[in-house]
Amino acid sequence: MSAFSRGLRTDIFYHLGLDTDMDLHAIFGNVKYFVLMGSAHRAEYFAEAMGNAMISQGTPKRVVARLGKTERYSMYKVGPVVSVSHGMGGPSIHILLNELAKLCYRAGIVDSVKWIRMGTSGGCGVPPGTVVVTTQALNDEVEPYWRCVQLGKVVKIPTDCVDMKFVDAILDSVPDNIHAVKGKTVAADDFYEGQGRLDGALETWYNEDDKMAFLSRLYDAGVRNIEMENVALMGFCNRANITGACVCVTFLDRFNGDQVTATKRELACFNEHSIDVVTNFIASELGRFGC
Amino acid sequence: MSAFSRGLRTDIFYHLGLDTDMDLHAIFGNVKYFVLMGSAHRAEYFAEAMGNAMISQGTPKRVVARLGKTERYSMYKVGPVVSVSHGMGGPSIHILLNELAKLCYRAGIVDSVKWIRMGTSGGCGVPPGTVVVTTQALNDEVEPYWRCVQLGKVVKIPTDCVDMKFVDAILDSVPDNIHAVKGKTVAADDFYEGQGRLDGALETWYNEDDKMAFLSRLYDAGVRNIEMENVALMGFCNRANITGACVCVTFLDRFNGDQVTATKRELACFNEHSIDVVTNFIASELGRFGC
Repeated sequence: MSAFSRGLRTDIFYHLGLDTDMDLHAIFGNVKYFVLMGSAHRAEYFAEAMGNAMISQGTPKRVVARLGKTERYSMYKVGPVVSVSHGMGGPSIHILLNELAKLCYRAGIVDSVKWIRMGTSGGCGVPPGTVVVTTQALNDEVEPYWRCVQLGKVVKIPTDCVDMKFVDAILDSVPDNIHAVKGKTVAADDFYEGQGRLDGALETWYNEDDKMAFLSRLYDAGVRNIEMENVALMGFCNRANITGACVCVTFLDRFNGDQVTATKRELACFNEHSIDVVTNFIASELGRFGC
Repeated sequence: MSAFSRGLRTDIFYHLGLDTDMDLHAIFGNVKYFVLMGSAHRAEYFAEAMGNAMISQGTPKRVVARLGKTERYSMYKVGPVVSVSHGMGGPSIHILLNELAKLCYRAGIVDSVKWIRMGTSGGCGVPPGTVVVTTQALNDEVEPYWRCVQLGKVVKIPTDCVDMKFVDAILDSVPDNIHAVKGKTVAADDFYEGQGRLDGALETWYNEDDKMAFLSRLYDAGVRNIEMENVALMGFCNRANITGACVCVTFLDRFNGDQVTATKRELACFNEHSIDVVTNFIASELGRFGC
């Protein structure tokens, strides 16, 4: 926690619509997991699914509560689990990570809470619908650090996992009907050229062969999926010593194309894979500790 | 337009929830302006305000229509103006820019449409509520290009304005009761350390004096505000030869602090400044051309 923000009488978490004049301990004191995902729709849907998963573990039904404002992020709480949207890209999730970390400190849960990003991604040599649990986040230059610029200076923050046992525990809990693998994840700053796609708006200097060679290079380096937030998440967790993980389902195998051509129904089914993995893991962990 | 996307039988604009099997010319053929802004709430509010401004110019009331899906971006159309949210940060807006450019090409309006980002920002030596119209976008290393990474290689795209007359025309149209300036804009990849704030979650290597020296360096270079999307917008417009502009209101003067301490009412009032500037400009331009 920075000395400056610790010293503020009132700290305004502007993008969440919360501040330290609220009784944050009363609201968040029992939270064990923050689950972060791209869209607001998904955050609400996940909170409902999480509540149902808790019931199946014998916990009484919890009410889903919406917290804060909704212009930037949307946050829902169901018992000891908070579900919150982070938008798209490293800059968007990094603002949320800062405000969540400050919130955890002020609520007195900074040492007990774990963070999971549950996202969608492009697969790298795995079939659509595969759940990838990240072992290491790589940036778009295929390096294991998050590139920040502070006062005009480039700062490189390592992205190694704080707790690989947490990653393994998630993998061990995956239901038999879901295909899950562990692997490295590349986080790019774009969906099109940043991920080597050829179907963006503008002409590219690279062609199909260059793209396939790059994807092969990623696969050989142990990369199994490509998304847009993991390097910021893992960089922040590493720096703040927070236990975090990234659980992303793949919507396509990039070796087979650039476009997301799966039907709405198939995409909804793939989405359920990642939701099932995360709700199942959290519900069983909470059950073990009687939360 | 890339040869690859031009050649696709069906091009899926995945994040917009639109595709080329729809009659895009029938839906978007009359569009003259795309107005881009951070939040979905604001995009809807702006569309209503734009419709009202058109009435005041003697145009009949237009219906606001919601288009596409809302998981990632939210799009509204009111006559020849489309209002669309882009989320936070360069990566998020860059996906939108790609899909909008492809949409413009397919709708046959690529040469006639103009793009305006209408945002919020931190001021650099200007009072809160000032509207800054950008003359040049600078990245977080204070350089006039947008840094992309494609297949692991860094590519630097210039961010100079395609049409400075467009910028001047917006400035000339500003109502007398609104304080507006032109100036350079820094786009950072973060709200906290990326903009030199000291109220983020974690300890920083820099202190208040370092921050103030950096802000002075920006001011002396002609920077008047700091936000998170302009370098991606201006880089894309430059590369695609699209006429674009960025009109951002300031919520605070960073020389006076880091936190957004203005009241809800004050922030709403500041927001109206940028909305008034953009709706007033577009309504009068449309009136001139009888649209």
